[in-house]
Amino acid sequence: MKEFNLIEHFFKANSGQRKDVIIGIGDDAAVTHIPQGQALVTTTDTLLSGVHFLPDASPHAVAQKAIAVNLSDLAAMGAEPAWISLSLSAPSADEEWLKSFSSGLQELVDYYSIQLIGGDTVQGPLAVTITAQGFVPFEQAITRSGANPGDLVYVTGTIGDAGLGLAIAKNEQAQVSNKSMTEENKAFLLKRLNYPTPRLLTGTKLRRIASACIDLSDGLISDIKHILNMSQCGATINIDKLPLSSALFDSVDKERAVNYALSAGDDYELLFTVSEEQKGNLETTLASANIPVTCIGQLNGSVGKLELYDNGQPYKVDIQGYQHF
Amino acid sequence: MKEFNLIEHFFKANSGQRKDVIIGIGDDAAVTHIPQGQALVTTTDTLLSGVHFLPDASPHAVAQKAIAVNLSDLAAMGAEPAWISLSLSAPSADEEWLKSFSSGLQELVDYYSIQLIGGDTVQGPLAVTITAQGFVPFEQAITRSGANPGDLVYVTGTIGDAGLGLAIAKNEQAQVSNKSMTEENKAFLLKRLNYPTPRLLTGTKLRRIASACIDLSDGLISDIKHILNMSQCGATINIDKLPLSSALFDSVDKERAVNYALSAGDDYELLFTVSEEQKGNLETTLASANIPVTCIGQLNGSVGKLELYDNGQPYKVDIQGYQHF
Repeated sequence: MKEFNLIEHFFKANSGQRKDVIIGIGDDAAVTHIPQGQALVTTTDTLLSGVHFLPDASPHAVAQKAIAVNLSDLAAMGAEPAWISLSLSAPSADEEWLKSFSSGLQELVDYYSIQLIGGDTVQGPLAVTITAQGFVPFEQAITRSGANPGDLVYVTGTIGDAGLGLAIAKNEQAQVSNKSMTEENKAFLLKRLNYPTPRLLTGTKLRRIASACIDLSDGLISDIKHILNMSQCGATINIDKLPLSSALFDSVDKERAVNYALSAGDDYELLFTVSEEQKGNLETTLASANIPVTCIGQLNGSVGKLELYDNGQPYKVDIQGYQHF
Repeated sequence: MKEFNLIEHFFKANSGQRKDVIIGIGDDAAVTHIPQGQALVTTTDTLLSGVHFLPDASPHAVAQKAIAVNLSDLAAMGAEPAWISLSLSAPSADEEWLKSFSSGLQELVDYYSIQLIGGDTVQGPLAVTITAQGFVPFEQAITRSGANPGDLVYVTGTIGDAGLGLAIAKNEQAQVSNKSMTEENKAFLLKRLNYPTPRLLTGTKLRRIASACIDLSDGLISDIKHILNMSQCGATINIDKLPLSSALFDSVDKERAVNYALSAGDDYELLFTVSEEQKGNLETTLASANIPVTCIGQLNGSVGKLELYDNGQPYKVDIQGYQHF
C-alpha cells in the first residue's frame, strides 16, 4: 500500500464530470465556478462509526448516508447541490470496504449530478466527513429565522421510520414492540435508516414560499426548537396529525410510533413554515411536483414554547432529541 | 452538557465578521458570496491525534495547525482565504480544552480576516477536520500540472525544521543528535512544527509567474513527485542548495538535516517552478515583498525521475515521504 493515494485510486474516476469544476481531485485544492446570480451554500457533517452508524453497516450505505445528510442540509436552505469533498478516516486500506464505499458514493454522485472535488484520507477510527457545496439564487436561501407567529408548520414525507429502523438494525425490535413485523416493513424501515433521501427538489420549490426550514436530523422536538428560538416564536403541534408510515404504525403501538416521530431523528425530512397567505401557493406548487407534505401545527407568539396536542387534548412527553454530547 | 451546541457556544462569537457571509454559523448551512471574476478554491484536511499531532499537543496549537495546513493548500493554488468550516471530534466536552482550542482558532480567524461559517461536533476520538474556501481570479490558479522541462525549482523559507521539531516534541533529540541543542533553537524548531505559517502572500504573488506549485506537507521528495507526475517532467535537485535554518543545521549533523529537509514534511513551505524567462520577474516580485526563496534545482524531460546532487556529485538517499496508509 506504499505511495497509495486512496482518494486518487478509488474515487478520482468516479468523481463525476461537471463543467463548473476547473480543477478537481489531484491538486492542492479544487477550483470551481459559481454561476452568476447565485450564492454559495456550504455545509459539513461527520458520521462516526458506533455513533452515527453501526460498526457493521455496509460501506455502500455509509457513503450514501454521509452524502445524503449533507445534501439534506443544502435542501433545507433551498439550495441545489454541486460539489462534495470527502475526509475519510479508516483503520486500514481494506480494498473490499473501499470498493463498496466508492460504489455507494459514485451512485449518488451520478444520481444528483454532483462532483467529488477533493478530500483527505487518514488512518484512524472509521469516520466520514463530507463537505457539500451548492448554490441558491441571491436572497432566496431559506433560513431558520424567517418564521412568524401564525405561520403553519409542515413536514415532508413520513417521520419516525428511521427511529424504528435503528431498533431493527440493532436487533432490538422485540424490546420495542410485541407486534410481529413483516419482512417488507422491516426492509422499508431499515432503508429509511440507512438510505435517507435528501428533499432537494422540495427545498428548491420552497424558495420564496416557506418562511423558515430545517431538516429533521435530531428529532422533531429538538429541531423545531431551532426555528422557534431563531424566529422568536412558539408552536403548537398536533401529534394526531404527524405523518406516520403504515410500516411504522403497523409495527409498534401508537405511543411508541409518536415517540419515534417526535424524537428519534435521522429521518432527513424537511420541517418548514408557511404563512397563511402562502398556503394555497404551497399546496399547488408541491402537488404539481408530487411532493407529500402534512400540516402538523401552527406557530404563535409564546417565544420558545412548544405545546403538543392529541386531538385537542394536551399531550405530555418526556423526550429529548439527539444529544451530540 | 445537555442541549449544548459546542460550535454555537464556543465558536460563534469568535467566528469573524466578513461582509461576504450572508448566513454564518447556526443554520442548516452557510450562505456566502463570491466576488465577480473570482473562482472558488476549496480544500479539506483532517488532523488526527496521535497521527498528525501528539496526544499532549496544546489545543491552541492544534486549532492553529489545522487551519494553517488548509490555508497552505489555498496558498499553493495562489488563492486568498475567505471561510472555514470545522468538524471537531472530541472524547468529551472539556471546557478548558475547548477554550484553548477556540482561542487558537480565533487568533487565526482575526489574523487572516477569515470567518468560521459552520461545522459539526461529534463525541469520538480527537480529530479536527477543516474545510477552507477562498478565491483566485479566473484562470490564475496555480496547479501542479503546468511545469515544463527547463523550469527552475524554488522553495520558500527553510525546510526540515518541523522534522527535527517533531523529534524534540517526542523527546527523542538524544536519539537523532549528539550535539547539544540550545533552548532557543529548540523553541524555534517546535514553533515550526506546531505553528506552521501558510505562505499565503507568496501564493498570490506567484500568480502568472509560477508554472506549478505545491505545498510541502509530506516532504520534498514525496511532494515534488506530484509536480513531476502531473507536469510530465523530471528534476534534478541540488541538496547543497537546500535552505536549512541555522537552528536545524546547528542541532544535527548535515546528513540528518538534509534527510529532514527531503523527507520529514510538515514544513508547509511552498515548492514552485518558474520558467527561465520569468526568473527576473519572480525575483523582483518576491524581493519587494521580502519573501525568502531559494532555487534548489531544475526540471528536465526525464518523466517522473528525480535526481539528487550534492555539489555536483550524485547523492543517494533511501527515504520516503509521509505515507498516509
